Amino acid sequence: MEIPSLYLERAVSQFAQLPGIGRKTAMRLVLHLLKRERDDVDAFADSLHDLVNNVHYCRVCHNICDGDICGICASQSRDHATVCVVESIQDVLAIEATQQYNGVYHVLGGVISPMDGIGPQDLEITSLVERVAAGNVKEVILALSPTMEGDTTDFYIFRKLADCHDVDITTIARGVAQNDQLHYTDEATLGRSILDRKPFRG
Amino acid sequence: MEIPSLYLERAVSQFAQLPGIGRKTAMRLVLHLLKRERDDVDAFADSLHDLVNNVHYCRVCHNICDGDICGICASQSRDHATVCVVESIQDVLAIEATQQYNGVYHVLGGVISPMDGIGPQDLEITSLVERVAAGNVKEVILALSPTMEGDTTDFYIFRKLADCHDVDITTIARGVAQNDQLHYTDEATLGRSILDRKPFRG
Repeated sequence: MEIPSLYLERAVSQFAQLPGIGRKTAMRLVLHLLKRERDDVDAFADSLHDLVNNVHYCRVCHNICDGDICGICASQSRDHATVCVVESIQDVLAIEATQQYNGVYHVLGGVISPMDGIGPQDLEITSLVERVAAGNVKEVILALSPTMEGDTTDFYIFRKLADCHDVDITTIARGVAQNDQLHYTDEATLGRSILDRKPFRG
Repeated sequence: MEIPSLYLERAVSQFAQLPGIGRKTAMRLVLHLLKRERDDVDAFADSLHDLVNNVHYCRVCHNICDGDICGICASQSRDHATVCVVESIQDVLAIEATQQYNGVYHVLGGVISPMDGIGPQDLEITSLVERVAAGNVKEVILALSPTMEGDTTDFYIFRKLADCHDVDITTIARGVAQNDQLHYTDEATLGRSILDRKPFRG
């Protein structure tokens, strides 16, 4: 598909580099932008410039923010003795959306994945250990995805924190999902949910 | 989902305005951009600025181009007496990709669609009639999508060109698609393919 305009070609190539967007979709998006007002598209471009040039990561928890420290770490009403370890900013948003958590976070920036060339040194694990070793943390909640990579990272962090005696290390509960049909639940999940059964509170 | 950074929020909103992209996908794309080199993202933003500020439409056929006249209209090796009427730039690219057409194009910029508020005056129909009336065109091929809107537009153009006596008006063939299973073909298409049967050339 030979594109008749250099500028069109460049914009399409840029969109096509995004994950999950092929050249046909990229073309559709760019032609959509061409139909919009020029100011709208300039605003789109400016938002990308601003994003990469102005966005910061929180010095404490590595969540995304506009200043030095994020709103959650700066808040007086949050429980700073409880630290929830998550993989990404999206996970922070997902947990915040539940409105069930009042502690603070620590964003690793990924999980250990040798297949993708991601080792512990690529993640914010050292800063987590320093943060816990500083002494004000009572509980570390490991809230990584229940995948092989997530479990590996859980174990790695658990060992790294072994010297911090006064800290409880917990993981989020795993079991059958709310509203799932029991007979459609996979064996590993169902097996785990039986082993981890808990007293019924009527 | 409350986003902790104004700049992140703005970029996500911009992506979420694109067709077929919701807020979750927008967030994924923006977080992907944040992982890229700053220069890459600046290049992305610049490509959008350049697109809306530098791209032109061909004075003759309204295809997208970087100058005054597109490469196809400027080419000496194309047959300028045959004009293929298409809905969009994407259709030009699709027909060019077949390598079966050596004429020129006329991009309408859409089809007549009262439901979407698009009337004949919103399309490049007047310029088509003027182009044909100028006298150098021998054949007009109507290559719009075989939908109700496309058919309506076909008829409208056919009537508008009725005064141009020396011009053949044709439409692209409709029938069963290459490699389609006959029993999966819809009734309208199959019916049309029987009515429009042609001599077998063995």
